[in-house]
Amino acid sequence: MKQGAIRILGIDTSLRSTGVGIVEFSGNAMRAVAYGRVRNKSSLSHSRCLEAIYDTLAELIETHRPDCAAIEGAFFAKNARTAMILGQARGAAMTACAKKKIPLFEHSPRRVKQAIVGTGTARKDQVAKMVMHLLALDEQPQEDAADALALAICHHRQHALPETLRVDSI
Amino acid sequence: MKQGAIRILGIDTSLRSTGVGIVEFSGNAMRAVAYGRVRNKSSLSHSRCLEAIYDTLAELIETHRPDCAAIEGAFFAKNARTAMILGQARGAAMTACAKKKIPLFEHSPRRVKQAIVGTGTARKDQVAKMVMHLLALDEQPQEDAADALALAICHHRQHALPETLRVDSI
Repeated sequence: MKQGAIRILGIDTSLRSTGVGIVEFSGNAMRAVAYGRVRNKSSLSHSRCLEAIYDTLAELIETHRPDCAAIEGAFFAKNARTAMILGQARGAAMTACAKKKIPLFEHSPRRVKQAIVGTGTARKDQVAKMVMHLLALDEQPQEDAADALALAICHHRQHALPETLRVDSI
Repeated sequence: MKQGAIRILGIDTSLRSTGVGIVEFSGNAMRAVAYGRVRNKSSLSHSRCLEAIYDTLAELIETHRPDCAAIEGAFFAKNARTAMILGQARGAAMTACAKKKIPLFEHSPRRVKQAIVGTGTARKDQVAKMVMHLLALDEQPQEDAADALALAICHHRQHALPETLRVDSI
């Protein structure tokens, strides 16, 4: 890792498919360090799904030592049951970051799309295409992994803002 | 711990005040092994609250080696934002149980009240009084801790049921 470089872990949480991606930023350059997704089969209990999310993130953080993490804010309208299940997945991810002592920030899907594609209403495949282009990847990443990489890139933009305009850690 | 005894950890989760309680059952006798609550000040970030819930449960499980855990089901009507925050707290608690390899079961508040007080509409202080009586405690436990102890007692009743009527682990 280059001196002065910064690594950001993006996390796009859901119980069955959590996208993860680490991007390294150095000067004007950025590159994908690792990305993929935690797939949890529908036959797995919720407890086992949360353990897989926690373990994958803990291992990623140990291996690649990101400086901070960015997670998708999820306060759009949903029914309470769906929100509860998504909340549990977020809880496992947040606990992994907290236990590994990396600060965690939150960005709305709209802000991420705006940062990557330029419009808050972009489709998931547009985000994936743009992420592929920005990171000069050989192929288009799977959409949840692309969303995670997009979160990392979006969060990095915060560093260009005056401190008072940046989001607080959660 | 007596041979043939079983220990159950009850967890009444919320972000700012999670009740915890371990009850040991041996023959017809039961006793409170440990109970209390994880209090998180309103000044603490959500990440730190989740870490405190996780750490307290992991330590309790290490120290007292419960055989399983019971958590309050929370699928009653709530708005999505409240459900998300409660879900995150549950996610931290569920991850702690999963990492420590103890099976986790879920019981609705109504079922717990019914098991302890005899009516599903009992008030929190009635539950606390009954828990104090059942466990022969010297003083009435704080209400969230009492709910956790009640969950453990409620779950133990499952053992008297035919296997097909018992709840599955989550």
